[in-house]
Amino acid sequence: MNALPAVLHHIDTECEAAVSRLFSLLRIKSISTDPAYKADCQRAAEWLVDDLASIGFEASIRDTPGHPMVVAHHDGPPGAPHVLFYGHYDVQPVDPLELWTRDPFDPAVRESEDGYQVIAGRGASDDKGQLMTFVEACRAYKAVGGVLPCKVTILFEGEEESGSPSMRAFLAANADELKADFALVCDTSQRDAMTPAICVGMRGLVEEEMTIHAASRDLHSGIYGGAAANPIRVLAKILGEIHDNDGRVTIHGFYDGVEETPSQVLASWEALGETAESFLGPIGLSVPSGEKGRSILELVWARPTAEFNGFSGGYTGKGFKTVIPAEASAKVSFRLVHKQDPANVRASFRKFVEERLPADCRVEFQSHDCSPAHQLPYDAPYLAAAKSALADEWTKAPIMRVVGGSIPVVGEFQAYLGLDSLLVGFALPNDRIHSPNEKYNLTSFHKGQRSWARILNALTRN
Amino acid sequence: MNALPAVLHHIDTECEAAVSRLFSLLRIKSISTDPAYKADCQRAAEWLVDDLASIGFEASIRDTPGHPMVVAHHDGPPGAPHVLFYGHYDVQPVDPLELWTRDPFDPAVRESEDGYQVIAGRGASDDKGQLMTFVEACRAYKAVGGVLPCKVTILFEGEEESGSPSMRAFLAANADELKADFALVCDTSQRDAMTPAICVGMRGLVEEEMTIHAASRDLHSGIYGGAAANPIRVLAKILGEIHDNDGRVTIHGFYDGVEETPSQVLASWEALGETAESFLGPIGLSVPSGEKGRSILELVWARPTAEFNGFSGGYTGKGFKTVIPAEASAKVSFRLVHKQDPANVRASFRKFVEERLPADCRVEFQSHDCSPAHQLPYDAPYLAAAKSALADEWTKAPIMRVVGGSIPVVGEFQAYLGLDSLLVGFALPNDRIHSPNEKYNLTSFHKGQRSWARILNALTRN
Repeated sequence: MNALPAVLHHIDTECEAAVSRLFSLLRIKSISTDPAYKADCQRAAEWLVDDLASIGFEASIRDTPGHPMVVAHHDGPPGAPHVLFYGHYDVQPVDPLELWTRDPFDPAVRESEDGYQVIAGRGASDDKGQLMTFVEACRAYKAVGGVLPCKVTILFEGEEESGSPSMRAFLAANADELKADFALVCDTSQRDAMTPAICVGMRGLVEEEMTIHAASRDLHSGIYGGAAANPIRVLAKILGEIHDNDGRVTIHGFYDGVEETPSQVLASWEALGETAESFLGPIGLSVPSGEKGRSILELVWARPTAEFNGFSGGYTGKGFKTVIPAEASAKVSFRLVHKQDPANVRASFRKFVEERLPADCRVEFQSHDCSPAHQLPYDAPYLAAAKSALADEWTKAPIMRVVGGSIPVVGEFQAYLGLDSLLVGFALPNDRIHSPNEKYNLTSFHKGQRSWARILNALTRN
Repeated sequence: MNALPAVLHHIDTECEAAVSRLFSLLRIKSISTDPAYKADCQRAAEWLVDDLASIGFEASIRDTPGHPMVVAHHDGPPGAPHVLFYGHYDVQPVDPLELWTRDPFDPAVRESEDGYQVIAGRGASDDKGQLMTFVEACRAYKAVGGVLPCKVTILFEGEEESGSPSMRAFLAANADELKADFALVCDTSQRDAMTPAICVGMRGLVEEEMTIHAASRDLHSGIYGGAAANPIRVLAKILGEIHDNDGRVTIHGFYDGVEETPSQVLASWEALGETAESFLGPIGLSVPSGEKGRSILELVWARPTAEFNGFSGGYTGKGFKTVIPAEASAKVSFRLVHKQDPANVRASFRKFVEERLPADCRVEFQSHDCSPAHQLPYDAPYLAAAKSALADEWTKAPIMRVVGGSIPVVGEFQAYLGLDSLLVGFALPNDRIHSPNEKYNLTSFHKGQRSWARILNALTRN
């Protein structure tokens, strides 16, 4: 007999108790970036270990050079999939404190301006409330039948808000213990309060800094203008050639590994009704800058980009100085999709620059972040399972969305554990994460638990 | 009977006395930019008025809102040309004082490292020594025959080193009194100690600052990259299109008014032996950046340029930030030659930018300096007179050079008095003007006086 109906019922009856447990966790000031809260971070990890142990997980604290990880294991039925669930227990600082309408670490259920019941407090949405949706789903399974439908490993991090400095080494050192069939990550948001979303992709990132060196010193343009190489001109010319008039990137080999998005996925994005006007209007723009002939959502979710994030050279203060500077610099970043190889993109970009460099100039490159894109195979069985589970809960098909930015842990799971990540989250765009008056809708918390219960059930049956 | 031989002889015998007079002027601390030396500036003007009056000029001090002008008149023979001679009695500050090997206002004749006798002191070369070459030539004419070969008006300024704030209004208010046939300006240098030079041209200048505005705020490139207009990209693309692959400026109408330099002038420049390697080598470069197929001296002396003097946008600090900025700015300047119209260049540039602007971006322009080029007609009779006079004195034809930068007073004489300026100066590239240990070669001072004596003589006979 399938346990799901009873599990969902249990979640519904336990609603208040679940909120109360979340409040206990929210009261712990686990601000990872501020050393003053080191003990609080430790306490949050301990709280989670105790809670997981109380529902039958083999849970432990794992020290790192920074704040500890929480690792927990629970067995599943033979033949059931093994999932690695990820969340983070650390939170952002609360400044400016005076903008909060109540103590950020004294959580409460309030009514929001738009009439929703919301849990108010730092971490309510990012990520304590979200990670507890999964824990509560497990608790319900255990309460109803004493077992979980899948084998579950849990990894809770305490340094997500401060750059995850310990994650790579931890994954490398504990890869055997953490390996699973795939990862579940609960740190993303829905499109709106009633429409579930699965993040099926995440753009990768290559960050490059370049400095063009020309003359051995700054020059007076009255004496050297028209004779000496001007590094601003050299740099502007090179950057100006990176996009063609149709918005395509002209770097040789840049599109290697970029796949076309399946037409039914494109159609589902089309159905969201997002237009260039609706997407760009709020920021005062109207004309998409990317490749012509593609929808605005395809541009930001499924196409690679080259963006210029900084340019400096010469005199940039008030007034004017007729200088020809000795050097000029730019910061350039590429958002990658699908199977684009970051190393190839970096090498092709450098070649593109070097080929356009005047004989007496030289270029210096500096690499910053570099991560591949993450793209779930659209035909993955666990994706189909999650889609149908979410559709059952929300009576609406989930949006297959892509995160334009990057969630580093997803790339690290791929690199160190060889795992794809299924990203399902219940946060909302107006949750004010990282800002004063962070909140998490009560329905996000409640239906999030029910969603995980359904997903775990669907994964087993797959 | 021509007075010239006797005048030259008089100059030779008066050499020591002339140096002693120059010393008196050099001892006056007429630093125009520092209010502490206001009385010294007044004293220098008075010294000049007294000296000019002593040789028969009708000389007076003219107050301005800043430091005074000195204006002096002396009649000439009927039919002789009327020249306006310009120089400035103010000097640059002397910091850092500790780098001077002697008190900058206690002049002395010393032997330089390269074995020349030099007059050491602030203003020795720029411009007290130079202006006194002309005064001494006049004194010699008066001593020998009691008359001058030309009608002479003298204008000495006291604010050249602090931007000439009073010059325009003074010229406008005294145009009738200052008008002459052409101007003589003694504030430029020779190519080397033995080769005289006439500056026959001076590039003009148009300075423009532009800011491209895109989104209403800074954006995260993970969310908006590939969708939102990036003003750095827009600006780089526009600047990158200003020069074609042959180094020519592509702005429509930019070359209107640019003339080809006469082939014999080009040949005389060719004969100077300056190459791309000799000109650019000392600053670490080797490849001319200007129009292909033109010599390095033609590029810096006779061709217009578009230079980018500053570019700023986005994040330019240490590390990386994946921002798409709301705006990006550049400072662009154009060096003009011949009859290029600054207003046309400015308008054509702005049109060039506007035509390339995406529909949802806007551009803001700010104008800075704007001055036309100054070019002596190569067939002007006074130019021929000066050439032959200088050739007689230096037993070497003078170089017809062009100043790549600008000397504002030359444009103002043109604008307010309708006068061309003949620029003859005896300073040397190693005179360290504006720097510690400024000097003026004794031969510069002595042969400068003889040169003016010969030029005045040649102008009369023309």
